[in-house]
Amino acid sequence: MTFRPPYRGGRHFLQIPGPSNIPDRILRAMDYPTIDHRGPQFQVLARKILADLGELFGTAQPVMVYPASGTGAWEAALVNTMAPGDQVLMYETGHFAALWQNLARKLGLDTETLPGDWRHGVDAAAIERRLRADDGHRIKAVCIVHNETSTGVLSDVPAVRAAMDRAGHPALLMVDTVSSLGAVEYRHDDWGVDVTISGSQKGMMLPAGLSFNAISAKALAAAERGGMPRSYWNWQDIIQANQKGSWPYTPATNLLYGLSEACDMLREAGLAQVHARHIRHGAAARAAVAAWGLENNCADPAEYSPVLTTVRMPEGHDADAFRAIVLDRFDMSLGQGLGKLSGKVFRIGHLGDFNDLSLMGTLAGVEMGLALAGVPHRAGGVQAAMDVLREHAAAAR
Amino acid sequence: MTFRPPYRGGRHFLQIPGPSNIPDRILRAMDYPTIDHRGPQFQVLARKILADLGELFGTAQPVMVYPASGTGAWEAALVNTMAPGDQVLMYETGHFAALWQNLARKLGLDTETLPGDWRHGVDAAAIERRLRADDGHRIKAVCIVHNETSTGVLSDVPAVRAAMDRAGHPALLMVDTVSSLGAVEYRHDDWGVDVTISGSQKGMMLPAGLSFNAISAKALAAAERGGMPRSYWNWQDIIQANQKGSWPYTPATNLLYGLSEACDMLREAGLAQVHARHIRHGAAARAAVAAWGLENNCADPAEYSPVLTTVRMPEGHDADAFRAIVLDRFDMSLGQGLGKLSGKVFRIGHLGDFNDLSLMGTLAGVEMGLALAGVPHRAGGVQAAMDVLREHAAAAR
Amino acid sequence: MTFRPPYRGGRHFLQIPGPSNIPDRILRAMDYPTIDHRGPQFQVLARKILADLGELFGTAQPVMVYPASGTGAWEAALVNTMAPGDQVLMYETGHFAALWQNLARKLGLDTETLPGDWRHGVDAAAIERRLRADDGHRIKAVCIVHNETSTGVLSDVPAVRAAMDRAGHPALLMVDTVSSLGAVEYRHDDWGVDVTISGSQKGMMLPAGLSFNAISAKALAAAERGGMPRSYWNWQDIIQANQKGSWPYTPATNLLYGLSEACDMLREAGLAQVHARHIRHGAAARAAVAAWGLENNCADPAEYSPVLTTVRMPEGHDADAFRAIVLDRFDMSLGQGLGKLSGKVFRIGHLGDFNDLSLMGTLAGVEMGLALAGVPHRAGGVQAAMDVLREHAAAAR
Amino acid sequence: MTFRPPYRGGRHFLQIPGPSNIPDRILRAMDYPTIDHRGPQFQVLARKILADLGELFGTAQPVMVYPASGTGAWEAALVNTMAPGDQVLMYETGHFAALWQNLARKLGLDTETLPGDWRHGVDAAAIERRLRADDGHRIKAVCIVHNETSTGVLSDVPAVRAAMDRAGHPALLMVDTVSSLGAVEYRHDDWGVDVTISGSQKGMMLPAGLSFNAISAKALAAAERGGMPRSYWNWQDIIQANQKGSWPYTPATNLLYGLSEACDMLREAGLAQVHARHIRHGAAARAAVAAWGLENNCADPAEYSPVLTTVRMPEGHDADAFRAIVLDRFDMSLGQGLGKLSGKVFRIGHLGDFNDLSLMGTLAGVEMGLALAGVPHRAGGVQAAMDVLREHAAAAR
Repeated sequence: MTFRPPYRGGRHFLQIPGPSNIPDRILRAMDYPTIDHRGPQFQVLARKILADLGELFGTAQPVMVYPASGTGAWEAALVNTMAPGDQVLMYETGHFAALWQNLARKLGLDTETLPGDWRHGVDAAAIERRLRADDGHRIKAVCIVHNETSTGVLSDVPAVRAAMDRAGHPALLMVDTVSSLGAVEYRHDDWGVDVTISGSQKGMMLPAGLSFNAISAKALAAAERGGMPRSYWNWQDIIQANQKGSWPYTPATNLLYGLSEACDMLREAGLAQVHARHIRHGAAARAAVAAWGLENNCADPAEYSPVLTTVRMPEGHDADAFRAIVLDRFDMSLGQGLGKLSGKVFRIGHLGDFNDLSLMGTLAGVEMGLALAGVPHRAGGVQAAMDVLREHAAAAR
Repeated sequence: MTFRPPYRGGRHFLQIPGPSNIPDRILRAMDYPTIDHRGPQFQVLARKILADLGELFGTAQPVMVYPASGTGAWEAALVNTMAPGDQVLMYETGHFAALWQNLARKLGLDTETLPGDWRHGVDAAAIERRLRADDGHRIKAVCIVHNETSTGVLSDVPAVRAAMDRAGHPALLMVDTVSSLGAVEYRHDDWGVDVTISGSQKGMMLPAGLSFNAISAKALAAAERGGMPRSYWNWQDIIQANQKGSWPYTPATNLLYGLSEACDMLREAGLAQVHARHIRHGAAARAAVAAWGLENNCADPAEYSPVLTTVRMPEGHDADAFRAIVLDRFDMSLGQGLGKLSGKVFRIGHLGDFNDLSLMGTLAGVEMGLALAGVPHRAGGVQAAMDVLREHAAAAR
Repeated sequence: MTFRPPYRGGRHFLQIPGPSNIPDRILRAMDYPTIDHRGPQFQVLARKILADLGELFGTAQPVMVYPASGTGAWEAALVNTMAPGDQVLMYETGHFAALWQNLARKLGLDTETLPGDWRHGVDAAAIERRLRADDGHRIKAVCIVHNETSTGVLSDVPAVRAAMDRAGHPALLMVDTVSSLGAVEYRHDDWGVDVTISGSQKGMMLPAGLSFNAISAKALAAAERGGMPRSYWNWQDIIQANQKGSWPYTPATNLLYGLSEACDMLREAGLAQVHARHIRHGAAARAAVAAWGLENNCADPAEYSPVLTTVRMPEGHDADAFRAIVLDRFDMSLGQGLGKLSGKVFRIGHLGDFNDLSLMGTLAGVEMGLALAGVPHRAGGVQAAMDVLREHAAAAR
Repeated sequence: MTFRPPYRGGRHFLQIPGPSNIPDRILRAMDYPTIDHRGPQFQVLARKILADLGELFGTAQPVMVYPASGTGAWEAALVNTMAPGDQVLMYETGHFAALWQNLARKLGLDTETLPGDWRHGVDAAAIERRLRADDGHRIKAVCIVHNETSTGVLSDVPAVRAAMDRAGHPALLMVDTVSSLGAVEYRHDDWGVDVTISGSQKGMMLPAGLSFNAISAKALAAAERGGMPRSYWNWQDIIQANQKGSWPYTPATNLLYGLSEACDMLREAGLAQVHARHIRHGAAARAAVAAWGLENNCADPAEYSPVLTTVRMPEGHDADAFRAIVLDRFDMSLGQGLGKLSGKVFRIGHLGDFNDLSLMGTLAGVEMGLALAGVPHRAGGVQAAMDVLREHAAAAR
């Protein structure tokens, strides 16, 4: 019997901060017979996708497509460029930064983490200080998360690049954009990033199962002269195969169909417009949170995420009990608190294939859920968000 | 190039009062290769569907399935039972009642219409009076619309039956349930209806393309001894073929796949629960309309439709200009005013595959649209609707 | 539980002569949310489809699209143009001609049928003779079936037109192309047809549920001054609505998505190439039948159908027992004998979305089935068909 | 514009030995909105799949599901159990064995390969000899390919197990079943395999993008006390997460929908029946090859693959030129020669969702292609295969 959740009436609101809601066009594009991955039609597809990805990442350099989760692309970035025991500098913006650090450590790297409070983005000045102190250039890479999905904080990538440049430090800059790419402006080449890691299931509006490494000439050179023992993640094999419109092992063709469609749709809607929409939705969601009298986990207005809003629960109230009520009563999945924020926050995803009215439904579900769960709050959040959206719409005339 | 509306970001809100939003499960069920309509597997499907439909219409008698729009099922009801020149009594609840009357007239019937103000349901007493005056029983059928989709008014079918019984009149009772079946309680047998007309694209959550006649023994007897020249719509041929698990001409197999799934889903969610949901959504939508200070087109609270809410525009404001703004800014389709209500009302569909949060998004789109279009109104409609839904959710604990 | 035939391994061969196998692209195009049938996007779709259909039927005049089976389009052709009691001349090419005649009679027309032996096409000379004898021009329409799906015989439409012209008779020429359009060359305007009837589920590669009337100015004039009482099928209402990119009642939008895709695909493959493919497959299928030593039901080589091959069973052998074995052992549905050919023939559909290798699989299933069913035949049919296809492929270099 | 190969008429024959043709039911199961991978419904899905996989692999021990290609699962098997520099014994059955060896070497393992001629399976006696000579038990793993997809040879896994047991050697036995699982009988536990590697895109009838490790207690113990630095592939993390119905990183939920459906379908058809079907198709394909007078690449009848048939080209004829003709003329993709067989063989995939008539179409395409390409051969292959299938069907009565 085909797996389907029991029917409740109406469409589930998948408002975790990714995987995001998948547009019908993408699901339909994927639902098509697989073609020969060594045949001429596949080459047409492969070449189109590789060109599309350059546009999306803002790069004229190669982009690796892995049949893997985003976690795999984290691993790929490191094993291609770092030798066992190399030192990497991470910045603890939140749970995902911590997971990446954990992964690096498991791979045998010497990780050092600049501490964070999970409410702010990367402190570029702290990175600069640390790099300046690294006289011997033992640090081989600086690893940061663009949009920290656990905290709702967006970091300033160009500021980190500038800090590294000011420090005159040769470490590679690696940036996780799993939950930002496609949703938030990003420019791999212009911003001087060496390895950009991303995944399919957030701003790219695809199911999970594809992940990416955009690279720089410097990163590629590092891979060519070193890295760790590796095969699956090996950039050079992929680059070589890509030149013939193929991949070195069987690609996930049906997900690639979806990727092609996603790139077309983002182009069709206009990438700048898509970014503006995410910014607008972030603003509206925060207006709701403020009206409820709840606290945004992101402490610095300059770093609010356009992709999700992380809301701190009042002391003595369990975020997961609240989330369970919202799921049960309103068929909406909200994001849980992760790591040390477990139970203390809930996360509202407002990314991917999403619009003003879906956001209003989402915020209404939160507001009603707060009441049903007995969480102290003021009414009026939905109204406040609506005011924001209405003003945007009026200004757009 | 596959037809697709240009991508705007997020899901279109199709809040016309039908065709309604189609659940993914139904679209997927339909997207399956056609099978031989004369083969054994098809018979399994046909028999399942015919049993399902009995449950849905509340009847132990035959239900005809036509590969046709609801309009075809109107025609079918009449051509099977009425002879040319027969008199039929209609009740002008609104545009669809008027269209049906028009159709009857084109078919050569002698139609008489009891006038209505397009703001009330059927006046059973008026029908009783008219039937009592029909000494010679020239009137062969009484035709009413259960849920008048143009006005947002629900009529009381058992009251009409009782009126006919009190008048001791032998006319057939024909009821259009195109926009009510599946969404509003309906009992063909218990309510003594002779022909129930319905369509797939509203409460049944399917695309348009299938329509139905549920019949009574009395209606079938009328068909057997008379009716008009007919072939496509002929009940007897269908009943005979159905006994072998087939239809007399090529059925719309892929739509039947969807119908089977729809019946499963309604059963899964519980038909009573589905009806209660529609009632709840009607109440919430009306709370919004009242808070906006706008007027509900339905003048009698006992007759509010659970399926749609028809809102009257303030004098001097064009409903279609407002609707165009909502479509342009918020990617939501609202129903237009039909017939003599053109430009004077807009209609909010809240039927089919729909839930509390979708309704909140819908009402937010209306409220923001009112502001953008400069339609005089008070804020607070969304809040009022949310209060209704929240109280329901709290009571449901 | 979603209806699905039990899984047997591999794809069912649906080799009835329609509904034909539906290409994945069309199923996917249909599996998309319904849009507002009164909104601007729908108008884009409607206008595209109406233009596409003109190309497909070979006409610059209006084409009606009905949410109905092909049988409905038969009815539509007659009720728009014929008055009750009008005389129509049919030609009994086989079961479908007989069904149409039956339908005409039920609608109250005075039908006269020129007899046929179910093994030949329309005898244009017989029609000419009959029309010449109709001094008073009582005959209002000549109705023929282009490709008689029950017998596997293709009739010569231009020859009938020429016969009518020679007879100087004003009757309308009506042609059923349900199983030919899209698969066999057809030119509504050039051939002087007044009403062309067609359906979606054969050469057009769609599911059943849409049917068509292409008309002439003369037919439209007849409709404007007469016809029968009608509403659902009424051309004028449709033509008027089409001018605004709509239909007079709710269209089967999801089937229209498929229709748009089908027209694109036929254009992409090249209509002339599609026709040539059907001719080639007919030739190969007949080579197999000849090699088996079985008899083609079509008695005149000039009239072989490119769409299906109807094979006569040797005396004393039941076609349906053979078909049941083929279905059971090889998961292939073949067409049954219809009407007076019941049990005496089986029909091999080779139409729609079909190619050389699918035909070879089909013929192999027939040849193996003949052996398993103990039907006297010679081996070598598959080989003979393969020789035909190989030679074509060689010549195509 | 949605990527679609240009329409040619009919369905492409994807007769490479994987990815195999995907059944419509699986594509439809995948084409469904993603659900929250941390929510309760996902847990239901995860638990069902893990139970299904135990059945499919024939194991009561954990099965890892990776969002990765089969190549990733090769890597996973090694990095979990082998320390850098460990010696592994491979057996060169063909291209895929060589690729795996290459991968192992890149990971820093000390690989030793027992040579093969690419026409035979694993020589268990040779393995036994080598293991007996390994006094110090330096060899930590024996790695073999069950069905060598490049050569069309099936190896005897229990024979290798017995050889290892006879040698009294503690090395782990690792078996690649990427192209056999689901199509050929396989029993992880009964056969004493320590790590079984598999992939989704062949016998499991899914798109590429999922791969698997079934493990033994001994393999898990090895992983717990050692292995290489690893994170993405780490078994312990997965086992731990699986206990809560989740995975340690975002799973490829939509592929998992398909996996659930695939397991249901294999159960529905009966795994034994599915295996028998593959054996029958192998026999029929070989009968064709023999009749053509061509040489099967597999030299030992005891080792014929039921999954594909690899055909050697006559000297002086290029397999790829032949394959290009078949693709161009008959829209069929055949497998190319890989590695040192490049240009020298072509491979006919007859696996996955496939039936007798599809096989006949496939073989007809090969036979016609041989003629068009001017490859010396005798006619009659199709006939010979048909004889095999017909006899099977007759015996099945």
